[in-house]
Amino acid sequence: MSEISSEGITAKKEDNFDEWYIQVILKAEIADYTPVSGCLAYRPTGYAIWENIQEATDREFKNVGIQNTYFPIFIPERLLKREEEHVEGFSPEVAWVTQAGNSSLDERLAVRPTSETVMYDVISRWIRSWRDLPLRLNQWNNVVRWEFRHPIPFLRSREFLWNEGHSLFATKKEAEAEREQILGIYKMITEEYLALPGYLGRKTESEKFPGAEATYSIEHLLPDGKAIQGPDFHFDGQRFSTVFDIVFVDRDGERQFVWQNTWAITTREIGVMLAVHGDNKGAIIPPKLAPIQVVVVPIMNYEDKLLILRKAAEITKNLSVEWRTKLDDRDNLTPGRKFNEWELRGIPLRIEIGPKDLKSGQVIIARRDTGSKKAVALDGVSKEVGRELDSIQINLFEKAKDFLASHTVRIQSLSDMKKAINEGKGILKVAWCGRATCEEKLRVEGGGKILNVPFDQSIPQGRCISCGQKAMVIVNYGRSY
Amino acid sequence: MSEISSEGITAKKEDNFDEWYIQVILKAEIADYTPVSGCLAYRPTGYAIWENIQEATDREFKNVGIQNTYFPIFIPERLLKREEEHVEGFSPEVAWVTQAGNSSLDERLAVRPTSETVMYDVISRWIRSWRDLPLRLNQWNNVVRWEFRHPIPFLRSREFLWNEGHSLFATKKEAEAEREQILGIYKMITEEYLALPGYLGRKTESEKFPGAEATYSIEHLLPDGKAIQGPDFHFDGQRFSTVFDIVFVDRDGERQFVWQNTWAITTREIGVMLAVHGDNKGAIIPPKLAPIQVVVVPIMNYEDKLLILRKAAEITKNLSVEWRTKLDDRDNLTPGRKFNEWELRGIPLRIEIGPKDLKSGQVIIARRDTGSKKAVALDGVSKEVGRELDSIQINLFEKAKDFLASHTVRIQSLSDMKKAINEGKGILKVAWCGRATCEEKLRVEGGGKILNVPFDQSIPQGRCISCGQKAMVIVNYGRSY
Repeated sequence: MSEISSEGITAKKEDNFDEWYIQVILKAEIADYTPVSGCLAYRPTGYAIWENIQEATDREFKNVGIQNTYFPIFIPERLLKREEEHVEGFSPEVAWVTQAGNSSLDERLAVRPTSETVMYDVISRWIRSWRDLPLRLNQWNNVVRWEFRHPIPFLRSREFLWNEGHSLFATKKEAEAEREQILGIYKMITEEYLALPGYLGRKTESEKFPGAEATYSIEHLLPDGKAIQGPDFHFDGQRFSTVFDIVFVDRDGERQFVWQNTWAITTREIGVMLAVHGDNKGAIIPPKLAPIQVVVVPIMNYEDKLLILRKAAEITKNLSVEWRTKLDDRDNLTPGRKFNEWELRGIPLRIEIGPKDLKSGQVIIARRDTGSKKAVALDGVSKEVGRELDSIQINLFEKAKDFLASHTVRIQSLSDMKKAINEGKGILKVAWCGRATCEEKLRVEGGGKILNVPFDQSIPQGRCISCGQKAMVIVNYGRSY
Repeated sequence: MSEISSEGITAKKEDNFDEWYIQVILKAEIADYTPVSGCLAYRPTGYAIWENIQEATDREFKNVGIQNTYFPIFIPERLLKREEEHVEGFSPEVAWVTQAGNSSLDERLAVRPTSETVMYDVISRWIRSWRDLPLRLNQWNNVVRWEFRHPIPFLRSREFLWNEGHSLFATKKEAEAEREQILGIYKMITEEYLALPGYLGRKTESEKFPGAEATYSIEHLLPDGKAIQGPDFHFDGQRFSTVFDIVFVDRDGERQFVWQNTWAITTREIGVMLAVHGDNKGAIIPPKLAPIQVVVVPIMNYEDKLLILRKAAEITKNLSVEWRTKLDDRDNLTPGRKFNEWELRGIPLRIEIGPKDLKSGQVIIARRDTGSKKAVALDGVSKEVGRELDSIQINLFEKAKDFLASHTVRIQSLSDMKKAINEGKGILKVAWCGRATCEEKLRVEGGGKILNVPFDQSIPQGRCISCGQKAMVIVNYGRSY
């Protein structure tokens, strides 16, 4: 760990969230700025978190028969243009390669903002009969969307990492059935690994993915009261397959277009996770994703130094069998300074062992999330560490759920809506008639947008908050990143 | 598996290697062409091979303390230009982003051909004292080098995947000591996983990496008698650290520039592996890398169909505990057709079970590499599969070593050299005085180049094959991709 970052967070999360968030990312050494605005450098801690998310998600994908592939980073302009809505949605943000070496290219190449068009052109050759279906493919790669708004590390990046799943089915029914499976995987990963709750639902027509028939999302809430879209799933119907001629011969010998879905989880989740769980001491990383889960800090006096170091090393070795454990045996820092550093970096558990502990055959276990400390007998350390890590993982999720619940408000009038948005109340549950004109009015007058239409429609609907006519649904509404 | 590719390889490896190689890649469904010339689509089999290479290599890296990171795909032109030799070496092949959306960028952005310049600009902020060193970082990512020569799948690609390792040390001695460790890892991976032998050595001045003090490589040999460079390692000295001001305060309080290395293994290795091991039936994938290691093919007659299928499923399930095993229970293909398909795809072992086998409580195990078949009692299948997979892995390596040895020739005169090159003899061991003028003469007159100067200098040197003066070293010489 570099000595530069050892000074703590100076901004308060509750007073200046934006500054606090940046300080956490830089000082906890999660990531750093680069000379390319909007493109991050992932430091080892930040990238290890992504590897852990990837590994957990990839395992789920492979379990249900999804296979990994890799397609080119470049998409010729003519290909990107083949699906009209798709190119309209993406072209304002495309980074274009126009030169190679000293030559000008005959045709511009898009740096992939997403890979539908280059994939489907190729995949159309791979499908002949119903026996080739379903074909469920995935890529873990980097994509570029040249946003012109102010970039925010992880939350709004010009380059980000993600999975892009692309599946092809013989029937609409099968394609639709995949939705629950994939959203289920994303819900499990966000809840059980990232400890992040969210609202599942369907995007409105105006907010769906360019080229999709329908888009579904998980919407998270950040501490500043703004919502942010998490993982998503798109039902593409036969839109791309008709354009790219992805055809198969069915069991009756008829030529049919395939049905398609796409789905993604991105490195944005790392930012959401840091924003939601951290506190004024720094980052708090959920145990399942933490590159270091336990740090062992020996507290040494002159006479017992060797004995304590030896015991600390032994504890580290034993714990390493089950948990990612690190011994901090640096001799140029005080224990207090070390405590601050590891708290800043968000390591879930700290084990302290000093001369007194050595004598009484115990250690002190300190939790990052609650700050609580307890003495534990040496022979019970391993078990207790397991219990505490589980407990931290659950506690972070419970706290995040409480925050979301207490920042979700049922709103019945336009004036209440404006007020709630201005006060940063969070996500508003409002009734909507389903018409685009009312959606637009809510956008203009409320300063937020319809995030999604939640699957959970248990709240009574009443009348549209905009026009007063009979509502069709309750929607999640809020300001959004 | 798509039915398109089920026709076999029509070119002979020994007669028309180029055509045979392309057919193996396309028909074994390893990869496919895309609308972007020189950029491949990795099909599930091809990408799974890369994942297996990555996983094995990454484990070794992590074991020695190397940490993964991620840096931007874009490098501003002014940064790329900061190290003179570096930019000279790469700029003829750089793909440039000049536009984003509808705007022209103020400064061109290189799509990374390699990441030294963008990484070191950022990393210089991460280092303060000797306590921050060594810092050993790695990225698994995609890079673009816009070669204008004819692209060949995997072997010469405009986009490829690789690891790029970048390490920083306090002393030259430590930096130099890393060479053996990293080249040792690459040697182990190429030999024990890819079953590929090669010659380790140092590149000449004219062939080293742009910006490095010294480059080391493993040189492989392809069946057509041409050499191809495998993994490499570069000792950069203090060249980049002086340019990018990567400075640390040493134990005596003095400011020093760090010492650096970089190193890489790329997806090119997949192509070398396919080219070396395959035969006229198709691909042969070494067991340790094969996405499917064992395929179980039931041979069914009408009456015993269910019994045989049940037994085949049971065998598949049992083997799956230890090996990647697939049951081919398709009912629209004859067993013979299935055999051909799986041979084409290079699956190391096939297990056949038919009515007679069922009665005598045995199966037939067929090896892809030798084509040999043997009957094995049902209760011994699992053990035998393990033995055969090990044996195939070793056999492929032994065969490749034999080929390399029999295509390595000691050459003593320029005329013999030209003759040997024209006849595609392989790698020539020739004596060299060490002067650039003689290296250039060998290039012009022989039609090949000095591949590297092998670490193994046990062959007596004699006189330079070019000028006749006292030789300094024996070099590996040959035509090269």
